[in-house]
Amino acid sequence: ELLATIQRHFMKSAHREWHGVKLMVTAGPTREKIDPVRFFTNRSSGKMGYAIAEEAAARGADVTLISGPVSLPKPQGVTLVQVESAAEMFAAVADRFQQSDIVIKAAAVADYRPKHTYEQKIKKQDGDWSVEMERTSDILKTLGKKRTHQILVGFAAETENLESNAKQKVESKRVDIIAANSITAPGSGFQGDTNELTLYTKDGDVIHIPLTSKKEAAGKLLDTAMSVYRKSKA
Amino acid sequence: ELLATIQRHFMKSAHREWHGVKLMVTAGPTREKIDPVRFFTNRSSGKMGYAIAEEAAARGADVTLISGPVSLPKPQGVTLVQVESAAEMFAAVADRFQQSDIVIKAAAVADYRPKHTYEQKIKKQDGDWSVEMERTSDILKTLGKKRTHQILVGFAAETENLESNAKQKVESKRVDIIAANSITAPGSGFQGDTNELTLYTKDGDVIHIPLTSKKEAAGKLLDTAMSVYRKSKA
Repeated sequence: ELLATIQRHFMKSAHREWHGVKLMVTAGPTREKIDPVRFFTNRSSGKMGYAIAEEAAARGADVTLISGPVSLPKPQGVTLVQVESAAEMFAAVADRFQQSDIVIKAAAVADYRPKHTYEQKIKKQDGDWSVEMERTSDILKTLGKKRTHQILVGFAAETENLESNAKQKVESKRVDIIAANSITAPGSGFQGDTNELTLYTKDGDVIHIPLTSKKEAAGKLLDTAMSVYRKSKA
Repeated sequence: ELLATIQRHFMKSAHREWHGVKLMVTAGPTREKIDPVRFFTNRSSGKMGYAIAEEAAARGADVTLISGPVSLPKPQGVTLVQVESAAEMFAAVADRFQQSDIVIKAAAVADYRPKHTYEQKIKKQDGDWSVEMERTSDILKTLGKKRTHQILVGFAAETENLESNAKQKVESKRVDIIAANSITAPGSGFQGDTNELTLYTKDGDVIHIPLTSKKEAAGKLLDTAMSVYRKSKA
Protein backbone atom coordinates (compact mmCIF):
# COMPACT_ATOMS: atom_id res chain seq x y z
CA GLU A 1 0.00 0.00 0.00
CA LEU A 2 2.88 2.35 0.88
CA LEU A 3 4.68 1.21 -2.27
CA ALA A 4 1.56 1.88 -4.33
CA THR A 5 1.30 5.36 -2.79
CA ILE A 6 4.94 6.08 -3.62
CA GLN A 7 4.47 4.79 -7.16
CA ARG A 8 1.43 7.02 -7.62
CA HIS A 9 3.42 9.98 -6.34
CA PHE A 10 6.29 9.41 -8.79
CA MET A 11 3.88 8.77 -11.64
CA LYS A 12 2.21 12.11 -11.01
CA SER A 13 5.54 13.95 -10.57
CA ALA A 14 6.70 12.59 -13.93
CA HIS A 15 3.58 13.94 -15.63
CA ARG A 16 3.05 17.36 -14.05
CA GLU A 17 1.67 18.69 -17.33
CA TRP A 18 -1.46 16.56 -16.79
CA HIS A 19 -2.33 18.02 -13.40
CA GLY A 20 -5.77 19.55 -13.47
CA VAL A 21 -6.27 18.85 -17.18
CA LYS A 22 -9.92 17.93 -17.74
CA LEU A 23 -10.01 14.81 -19.88
CA MET A 24 -13.20 13.17 -21.12
CA VAL A 25 -12.84 9.61 -22.48
CA THR A 26 -15.59 7.52 -24.07
CA ALA A 27 -15.41 3.73 -24.15
CA GLY A 28 -17.26 0.55 -25.02
CA PRO A 29 -20.07 -0.23 -27.43
CA THR A 30 -23.58 1.17 -27.43
CA ARG A 31 -26.76 -0.89 -27.55
CA GLU A 32 -29.61 0.08 -29.85
CA LYS A 33 -32.83 -1.57 -28.72
CA ILE A 34 -35.37 -3.23 -30.96
CA ASP A 35 -37.46 -4.40 -28.01
CA PRO A 36 -36.80 -5.20 -24.32
CA VAL A 37 -34.70 -8.24 -25.31
CA ARG A 38 -33.20 -7.70 -28.76
CA PHE A 39 -30.65 -5.07 -29.75
CA PHE A 40 -28.00 -4.10 -32.25
CA THR A 41 -24.49 -3.52 -31.00
CA ASN A 42 -20.77 -3.51 -31.81
CA ARG A 43 -17.85 -5.67 -30.99
CA SER A 44 -16.08 -3.55 -28.38
CA SER A 45 -14.72 -4.64 -25.02
CA GLY A 46 -14.09 -1.08 -23.82
CA LYS A 47 -10.53 -2.05 -22.84
CA MET A 48 -8.78 0.65 -24.89
CA GLY A 49 -10.91 3.49 -23.48
CA TYR A 50 -10.61 2.17 -19.92
CA ALA A 51 -6.82 1.89 -20.32
CA ILE A 52 -6.65 5.51 -21.48
CA ALA A 53 -8.83 6.71 -18.58
CA GLU A 54 -6.82 4.76 -16.01
CA GLU A 55 -3.45 5.90 -17.34
CA ALA A 56 -4.54 9.55 -17.50
CA ALA A 57 -5.87 9.43 -13.93
CA ALA A 58 -2.55 7.95 -12.78
CA ARG A 59 -0.81 10.89 -14.46
CA GLY A 60 -2.93 13.32 -12.47
CA ALA A 61 -5.61 14.33 -15.00
CA ASP A 62 -9.19 15.01 -13.93
CA VAL A 63 -10.84 12.18 -15.87
CA THR A 64 -14.49 11.57 -16.75
CA LEU A 65 -15.16 8.23 -18.44
CA ILE A 66 -18.40 7.91 -20.40
CA SER A 67 -18.93 4.18 -20.89
CA GLY A 68 -21.31 1.95 -22.78
CA PRO A 69 -22.14 -1.50 -21.32
CA VAL A 70 -18.89 -3.40 -20.69
CA SER A 71 -17.71 -5.92 -18.11
CA LEU A 72 -14.71 -4.03 -16.78
CA PRO A 73 -14.13 -2.72 -13.27
CA LYS A 74 -14.29 1.05 -12.75
CA PRO A 75 -10.76 2.46 -13.11
CA GLN A 76 -9.37 4.05 -9.95
CA GLY A 77 -9.77 7.79 -9.57
CA VAL A 78 -12.05 8.48 -12.53
CA THR A 79 -15.64 9.74 -12.64
CA LEU A 80 -17.63 7.02 -14.41
CA VAL A 81 -20.85 7.80 -16.30
CA GLN A 82 -22.65 4.73 -17.63
CA VAL A 83 -24.82 4.95 -20.73
CA GLU A 84 -26.48 2.42 -23.00
CA SER A 85 -27.51 3.87 -26.37
CA ALA A 86 -25.80 6.17 -28.87
CA ALA A 87 -28.35 8.86 -27.98
CA GLU A 88 -27.47 8.57 -24.28
CA MET A 89 -23.76 8.66 -25.14
CA PHE A 90 -24.31 11.79 -27.23
CA ALA A 91 -26.19 13.54 -24.41
CA ALA A 92 -23.60 12.60 -21.78
CA VAL A 93 -20.72 13.83 -23.95
CA ALA A 94 -22.46 17.04 -25.02
CA ASP A 95 -23.25 17.87 -21.37
CA ARG A 96 -19.59 17.78 -20.42
CA PHE A 97 -17.95 19.08 -23.59
CA GLN A 98 -17.61 22.76 -22.74
CA GLN A 99 -15.69 22.14 -19.51
CA SER A 100 -13.32 19.56 -21.09
CA ASP A 101 -9.77 20.33 -22.22
CA ILE A 102 -9.14 17.09 -24.10
CA VAL A 103 -11.74 14.63 -25.41
CA ILE A 104 -10.76 11.12 -26.52
CA LYS A 105 -13.56 9.22 -28.21
CA ALA A 106 -12.60 5.54 -27.96
CA ALA A 107 -16.21 4.27 -27.83
CA ALA A 108 -17.53 2.19 -30.72
CA VAL A 109 -20.80 4.10 -30.97
CA ALA A 110 -23.43 2.43 -33.15
CA ASP A 111 -23.92 4.45 -36.33
CA TYR A 112 -27.37 2.95 -37.00
CA ARG A 113 -30.28 2.26 -34.68
CA PRO A 114 -33.69 0.65 -35.28
CA LYS A 115 -36.24 3.26 -36.37
CA HIS A 116 -38.81 1.80 -33.98
CA THR A 117 -38.27 0.46 -30.49
CA TYR A 118 -41.04 -1.79 -29.17
CA GLU A 119 -42.15 -1.72 -25.53
CA GLN A 120 -43.02 -5.42 -25.53
CA LYS A 121 -40.94 -8.31 -26.80
CA ILE A 122 -41.84 -8.97 -30.43
CA LYS A 123 -43.12 -12.54 -30.82
CA LYS A 124 -41.20 -14.39 -33.51
CA GLN A 125 -43.13 -15.32 -36.60
CA ASP A 126 -42.58 -17.50 -39.60
CA GLY A 127 -40.65 -15.98 -42.45
CA ASP A 128 -38.27 -13.08 -42.82
CA TRP A 129 -38.19 -9.76 -41.09
CA SER A 130 -36.95 -6.45 -42.36
CA VAL A 131 -35.55 -4.17 -39.65
CA GLU A 132 -35.62 -0.52 -40.63
CA MET A 133 -32.57 1.33 -39.36
CA GLU A 134 -31.72 5.03 -39.24
CA ARG A 135 -28.47 6.89 -38.66
CA THR A 136 -27.52 7.95 -35.16
CA SER A 137 -25.96 11.37 -34.66
CA ASP A 138 -22.26 11.55 -35.48
CA ILE A 139 -20.90 12.61 -32.09
CA LEU A 140 -17.34 13.28 -33.23
CA LYS A 141 -18.46 15.40 -36.18
CA THR A 142 -20.84 17.38 -33.96
CA LEU A 143 -18.04 18.03 -31.45
CA GLY A 144 -15.73 19.03 -34.32
CA LYS A 145 -18.20 21.77 -35.25
CA LYS A 146 -18.84 22.92 -31.66
CA ARG A 147 -15.27 22.92 -30.41
CA THR A 148 -13.78 26.06 -29.00
CA HIS A 149 -10.58 25.26 -27.08
CA GLN A 150 -10.94 21.46 -26.81
CA ILE A 151 -8.42 18.99 -28.23
CA LEU A 152 -10.32 16.22 -30.01
CA VAL A 153 -9.06 12.67 -30.53
CA GLY A 154 -11.12 10.12 -32.46
CA PHE A 155 -10.68 6.45 -33.29
CA ALA A 156 -11.07 4.72 -36.62
CA ALA A 157 -11.59 0.98 -36.67
CA GLU A 158 -11.34 -0.24 -40.21
CA THR A 159 -10.98 -3.53 -42.02
CA GLU A 160 -9.62 -1.91 -45.22
CA ASN A 161 -8.09 1.34 -46.54
CA LEU A 162 -7.00 2.24 -43.05
CA GLU A 163 -4.72 5.16 -43.88
CA SER A 164 -6.88 6.98 -46.40
CA ASN A 165 -9.98 6.57 -44.23
CA ALA A 166 -8.12 7.88 -41.18
CA LYS A 167 -6.66 10.91 -42.99
CA GLN A 168 -10.06 11.72 -44.44
CA LYS A 169 -11.60 11.53 -40.97
CA VAL A 170 -9.09 14.07 -39.57
CA GLU A 171 -10.26 16.53 -42.22
CA SER A 172 -13.97 15.85 -42.38
CA LYS A 173 -14.53 15.73 -38.64
CA ARG A 174 -12.18 18.58 -37.74
CA VAL A 175 -10.32 16.61 -35.08
CA ASP A 176 -6.70 16.87 -33.93
CA ILE A 177 -5.78 13.18 -33.92
CA ILE A 178 -7.28 10.04 -35.39
CA ALA A 179 -6.05 6.80 -33.81
CA ALA A 180 -6.47 4.12 -36.44
CA ASN A 181 -6.39 0.42 -35.75
CA SER A 182 -6.83 -2.43 -38.13
CA ILE A 183 -9.38 -4.64 -36.45
CA THR A 184 -8.32 -7.54 -38.65
CA ALA A 185 -4.59 -7.36 -37.78
CA PRO A 186 -3.49 -10.09 -35.36
CA GLY A 187 -3.42 -8.91 -31.74
CA SER A 188 -5.08 -5.63 -32.64
CA GLY A 189 -8.54 -4.33 -32.09
CA PHE A 190 -11.64 -4.87 -30.03
CA GLN A 191 -11.42 -7.83 -27.72
CA GLY A 192 -7.79 -8.42 -26.72
CA ASP A 193 -5.41 -6.81 -24.27
CA THR A 194 -3.03 -5.57 -26.95
CA ASN A 195 -3.34 -3.05 -29.74
CA GLU A 196 -1.41 -1.63 -32.67
CA LEU A 197 -2.28 1.95 -33.50
CA THR A 198 -1.30 4.59 -35.99
CA LEU A 199 -1.95 8.19 -35.03
CA TYR A 200 -2.69 10.73 -37.75
CA THR A 201 -2.53 14.35 -36.58
CA LYS A 202 -4.10 17.37 -38.26
CA ASP A 203 -0.56 18.73 -38.81
CA GLY A 204 0.19 15.68 -40.95
CA ASP A 205 2.28 13.75 -38.42
CA VAL A 206 2.01 9.98 -38.59
CA ILE A 207 2.99 8.17 -35.39
CA HIS A 208 3.06 4.40 -35.40
CA ILE A 209 2.58 2.55 -32.09
CA PRO A 210 3.69 -1.05 -32.68
CA LEU A 211 1.73 -3.93 -31.15
CA THR A 212 1.86 -3.51 -27.38
CA SER A 213 -0.37 -3.68 -24.30
CA LYS A 214 -3.41 -1.39 -24.36
CA LYS A 215 -1.91 0.31 -21.28
CA GLU A 216 1.32 1.16 -23.16
CA ALA A 217 -0.61 2.22 -26.26
CA ALA A 218 -2.78 4.42 -24.02
CA GLY A 219 0.33 6.11 -22.60
CA LYS A 220 1.71 6.90 -26.04
CA LEU A 221 -1.63 8.19 -27.25
CA LEU A 222 -1.79 10.45 -24.18
CA ASP A 223 1.75 11.73 -24.90
CA THR A 224 0.69 12.77 -28.38
CA ALA A 225 -2.55 14.34 -27.14
CA MET A 226 -0.58 16.31 -24.54
CA SER A 227 1.86 17.61 -27.12
CA VAL A 228 -1.02 18.85 -29.30
CA TYR A 229 -2.67 20.36 -26.22
CA ARG A 230 0.52 22.22 -25.25
CA LYS A 231 0.94 23.61 -28.75
CA SER A 232 -2.64 24.88 -28.66
CA LYS A 233 -1.91 26.73 -25.41
CA ALA A 234 1.40 28.18 -26.64
CA GLU B 1 -9.41 -26.33 1.36
CA LEU B 2 -10.17 -29.31 3.62
CA LEU B 3 -13.48 -27.69 4.55
CA ALA B 4 -14.30 -27.20 0.85
CA THR B 5 -13.49 -30.85 0.18
CA ILE B 6 -15.74 -31.97 3.03
CA GLN B 7 -18.53 -29.67 1.82
CA ARG B 8 -18.24 -31.11 -1.71
CA HIS B 9 -18.39 -34.61 -0.28
CA PHE B 10 -21.61 -33.93 1.69
CA MET B 11 -23.15 -32.10 -1.26
CA LYS B 12 -22.58 -35.12 -3.47
CA SER B 13 -23.78 -37.56 -0.81
CA ALA B 14 -27.00 -35.57 -0.43
CA HIS B 15 -27.63 -35.83 -4.17
CA ARG B 16 -26.67 -39.38 -5.08
CA GLU B 17 -29.37 -39.47 -7.74
CA TRP B 18 -27.32 -37.05 -9.85
CA HIS B 19 -24.19 -39.21 -9.96
CA GLY B 20 -23.28 -40.00 -13.53
CA VAL B 21 -26.33 -38.23 -14.97
CA LYS B 22 -25.30 -36.55 -18.23
CA LEU B 23 -26.61 -33.00 -18.17
CA MET B 24 -26.25 -30.53 -21.03
CA VAL B 25 -26.93 -26.88 -20.19
CA THR B 26 -26.95 -23.97 -22.64
CA ALA B 27 -26.37 -20.40 -21.49
CA GLY B 28 -25.86 -16.82 -22.59
CA PRO B 29 -26.86 -14.92 -25.70
CA THR B 30 -25.83 -15.59 -29.28
CA ARG B 31 -24.35 -13.04 -31.65
CA GLU B 32 -25.59 -12.79 -35.24
CA LYS B 33 -23.06 -10.95 -37.37
CA ILE B 34 -23.84 -8.29 -39.94
CA ASP B 35 -20.16 -7.58 -40.59
CA PRO B 36 -16.90 -7.92 -38.61
CA VAL B 37 -18.01 -5.18 -36.21
CA ARG B 38 -21.82 -5.05 -36.07
CA PHE B 39 -24.13 -7.74 -34.77
CA PHE B 40 -27.59 -8.49 -33.40
CA THR B 41 -27.87 -10.04 -29.98
CA ASN B 42 -29.99 -10.52 -26.87
CA ARG B 43 -29.92 -9.23 -23.35
CA SER B 44 -28.60 -12.26 -21.49
CA SER B 45 -25.85 -12.38 -18.90
CA GLY B 46 -25.65 -16.20 -18.89
CA LYS B 47 -25.89 -16.19 -15.09
CA MET B 48 -28.93 -18.49 -14.85
CA GLY B 49 -27.40 -21.19 -17.09
CA TYR B 50 -24.03 -20.94 -15.36
CA ALA B 51 -25.74 -21.26 -11.95
CA ILE B 52 -27.53 -24.41 -13.14
CA ALA B 53 -24.33 -25.92 -14.52
CA GLU B 54 -22.37 -25.13 -11.35
CA GLU B 55 -25.04 -26.47 -9.00
CA ALA B 56 -25.48 -29.68 -11.03
CA ALA B 57 -21.72 -30.30 -11.07
CA ALA B 58 -21.62 -29.81 -7.29
CA ARG B 59 -24.36 -32.44 -7.01
CA GLY B 60 -22.24 -34.91 -8.97
CA ALA B 61 -23.72 -34.68 -12.47
CA ASP B 62 -21.56 -34.98 -15.59
CA VAL B 63 -22.14 -31.46 -16.96
CA THR B 64 -21.49 -29.98 -20.40
CA LEU B 65 -22.13 -26.25 -20.64
CA ILE B 66 -22.64 -24.81 -24.13
CA SER B 67 -22.18 -21.08 -23.77
CA GLY B 68 -22.59 -18.01 -25.94
CA PRO B 69 -20.31 -15.00 -25.31
CA VAL B 70 -20.58 -13.97 -21.65
CA SER B 71 -18.21 -12.50 -19.08
CA LEU B 72 -18.47 -15.20 -16.43
CA PRO B 73 -15.74 -17.51 -15.14
CA LYS B 74 -15.92 -21.17 -16.13
CA PRO B 75 -17.84 -23.05 -13.41
CA GLN B 76 -15.78 -25.66 -11.56
CA GLY B 77 -16.00 -29.22 -12.81
CA VAL B 78 -17.95 -28.66 -16.02
CA THR B 79 -16.97 -29.16 -19.66
CA LEU B 80 -17.31 -25.75 -21.30
CA VAL B 81 -17.99 -25.38 -25.04
CA GLN B 82 -17.94 -21.79 -26.27
CA VAL B 83 -19.98 -20.75 -29.29
CA GLU B 84 -20.95 -17.45 -30.85
CA SER B 85 -23.92 -17.71 -33.24
CA ALA B 86 -27.26 -19.51 -33.08
CA ALA B 87 -26.00 -21.84 -35.84
CA GLU B 88 -22.91 -22.73 -33.79
CA MET B 89 -25.09 -23.25 -30.71
CA PHE B 90 -27.37 -25.54 -32.72
CA ALA B 91 -24.45 -27.63 -33.99
CA ALA B 92 -22.84 -27.93 -30.55
CA VAL B 93 -26.11 -29.02 -28.94
CA ALA B 94 -27.06 -31.45 -31.72
CA ASP B 95 -23.61 -33.08 -31.49
CA ARG B 96 -24.11 -33.93 -27.83
CA PHE B 97 -27.84 -34.59 -27.70
CA GLN B 98 -27.89 -38.36 -28.10
CA GLN B 99 -25.57 -39.01 -25.15
CA SER B 100 -27.39 -36.57 -22.83
CA ASP B 101 -29.89 -37.62 -20.15
CA ILE B 102 -31.21 -34.17 -19.32
CA VAL B 103 -30.96 -31.02 -21.44
CA ILE B 104 -31.65 -27.59 -19.96
CA LYS B 105 -31.79 -24.79 -22.54
CA ALA B 106 -31.20 -21.59 -20.62
CA ALA B 107 -29.52 -19.77 -23.51
CA ALA B 108 -31.24 -16.77 -25.10
CA VAL B 109 -30.63 -17.91 -28.66
CA ALA B 110 -31.33 -15.25 -31.29
CA ASP B 111 -34.40 -16.21 -33.28
CA TYR B 112 -33.46 -13.97 -36.23
CA ARG B 113 -30.15 -13.41 -37.97
CA PRO B 114 -29.12 -11.10 -40.83
CA LYS B 115 -29.63 -12.80 -44.19
CA HIS B 116 -26.25 -11.59 -45.38
CA THR B 117 -23.01 -11.36 -43.43
CA TYR B 118 -20.37 -9.06 -44.91
CA GLU B 119 -16.65 -9.88 -44.79
CA GLN B 120 -15.64 -6.22 -44.59
CA LYS B 121 -17.04 -3.54 -42.32
CA ILE B 122 -19.89 -1.78 -44.12
CA LYS B 123 -19.12 1.93 -44.43
CA LYS B 124 -21.93 4.04 -43.06
CA GLN B 125 -23.84 6.14 -45.54
CA ASP B 126 -26.39 8.89 -45.42
CA GLY B 127 -29.97 7.83 -45.00
CA ASP B 128 -31.72 4.75 -43.73
CA TRP B 129 -30.77 1.12 -43.98
CA SER B 130 -33.01 -1.88 -44.13
CA VAL B 131 -31.50 -5.03 -42.61
CA GLU B 132 -33.05 -8.21 -43.96
CA MET B 133 -33.37 -10.86 -41.27
CA GLU B 134 -34.26 -14.53 -41.46
CA ARG B 135 -35.29 -17.03 -38.82
CA THR B 136 -32.66 -19.18 -37.12
CA SER B 137 -33.44 -22.83 -36.46
CA ASP B 138 -35.60 -23.44 -33.39
CA ILE B 139 -33.23 -25.62 -31.36
CA LEU B 140 -35.72 -26.58 -28.64
CA LYS B 141 -38.36 -27.59 -31.16
CA THR B 142 -35.86 -29.64 -33.15
CA LEU B 143 -34.74 -31.44 -30.00
CA GLY B 144 -38.40 -32.02 -29.06
CA LYS B 145 -38.84 -33.91 -32.33
CA LYS B 146 -35.58 -35.85 -32.08
CA ARG B 147 -35.76 -36.82 -28.42
CA THR B 148 -35.64 -40.47 -27.47
CA HIS B 149 -34.93 -40.81 -23.75
CA GLN B 150 -33.84 -37.22 -22.96
CA ILE B 151 -35.59 -34.98 -20.47
CA LEU B 152 -35.98 -31.53 -22.01
CA VAL B 153 -36.22 -28.26 -20.10
CA GLY B 154 -36.74 -24.96 -21.90
CA PHE B 155 -36.96 -21.35 -20.79
CA ALA B 156 -39.51 -18.74 -21.75
CA ALA B 157 -38.66 -15.10 -21.23
CA GLU B 158 -41.73 -13.02 -21.81
CA THR B 159 -42.89 -9.51 -21.17
CA GLU B 160 -46.61 -10.40 -21.36
CA ASN B 161 -49.01 -13.40 -21.27
CA LEU B 162 -46.40 -15.40 -19.40
CA GLU B 163 -48.58 -18.33 -18.37
CA SER B 164 -50.40 -18.98 -21.62
CA ASN B 165 -47.20 -18.62 -23.64
CA ALA B 166 -45.35 -21.03 -21.35
CA LYS B 167 -48.11 -23.65 -21.39
CA GLN B 168 -48.33 -23.42 -25.16
CA LYS B 169 -44.56 -23.88 -25.41
CA VAL B 170 -44.70 -27.12 -23.36
CA GLU B 171 -47.16 -28.51 -25.92
CA SER B 172 -45.80 -27.15 -29.17
CA LYS B 173 -42.15 -27.93 -28.45
CA ARG B 174 -42.75 -31.31 -26.79
CA VAL B 175 -40.64 -30.50 -23.73
CA ASP B 176 -40.99 -31.73 -20.14
CA ILE B 177 -40.63 -28.44 -18.32
CA ILE B 178 -40.80 -24.79 -19.32
CA ALA B 179 -39.22 -22.39 -16.83
CA ALA B 180 -40.95 -19.05 -17.34
CA ASN B 181 -39.66 -15.77 -16.07
CA SER B 182 -41.12 -12.35 -16.45
CA ILE B 183 -38.22 -10.24 -17.64
CA THR B 184 -40.08 -7.09 -16.60
CA ALA B 185 -40.72 -8.19 -12.98
CA PRO B 186 -38.42 -6.44 -10.47
CA GLY B 187 -35.37 -8.56 -9.60
CA SER B 188 -36.19 -11.12 -12.27
CA GLY B 189 -34.64 -11.87 -15.59
CA PHE B 190 -31.53 -11.37 -17.61
CA GLN B 191 -28.94 -9.24 -15.88
CA GLY B 192 -29.26 -9.61 -12.13
CA ASP B 193 -28.22 -12.22 -9.60
CA THR B 194 -31.78 -13.11 -8.60
CA ASN B 195 -34.66 -14.68 -10.45
CA GLU B 196 -38.31 -15.55 -9.99
CA LEU B 197 -39.43 -18.57 -12.01
CA THR B 198 -42.56 -20.56 -12.61
CA LEU B 199 -42.11 -24.11 -13.84
CA TYR B 200 -44.79 -25.63 -16.07
CA THR B 201 -44.48 -29.40 -16.52
CA LYS B 202 -46.00 -31.50 -19.28
CA ASP B 203 -48.09 -33.28 -16.60
CA GLY B 204 -49.73 -29.97 -15.77
CA ASP B 205 -47.84 -29.20 -12.57
CA VAL B 206 -47.16 -25.55 -11.85
CA ILE B 207 -44.27 -24.90 -9.46
CA HIS B 208 -43.60 -21.34 -8.41
CA ILE B 209 -40.07 -20.42 -7.31
CA PRO B 210 -40.32 -17.06 -5.50
CA LEU B 211 -37.66 -14.40 -6.04
CA THR B 212 -34.36 -15.84 -4.84
CA SER B 213 -30.71 -16.11 -5.84
CA LYS B 214 -30.06 -17.70 -9.24
CA LYS B 215 -28.14 -20.41 -7.35
CA GLU B 216 -31.21 -21.29 -5.23
CA ALA B 217 -33.50 -21.10 -8.25
CA ALA B 218 -31.08 -23.40 -10.12
CA GLY B 219 -31.27 -25.94 -7.29
CA LYS B 220 -35.07 -25.98 -7.32
CA LEU B 221 -35.17 -26.27 -11.10
CA LEU B 222 -32.74 -29.22 -10.88
CA ASP B 223 -34.95 -30.88 -8.22
CA THR B 224 -37.93 -30.71 -10.58
CA ALA B 225 -35.90 -31.96 -13.54
CA MET B 226 -34.63 -34.89 -11.44
CA SER B 227 -38.15 -35.84 -10.38
CA VAL B 228 -39.30 -35.91 -14.03
CA TYR B 229 -36.17 -37.89 -14.96
CA ARG B 230 -36.82 -40.47 -12.22
CA LYS B 231 -40.42 -40.90 -13.34
CA SER B 232 -39.23 -41.49 -16.90
CA LYS B 233 -36.92 -44.26 -15.67
CA ALA B 234 -39.56 -45.88 -13.43
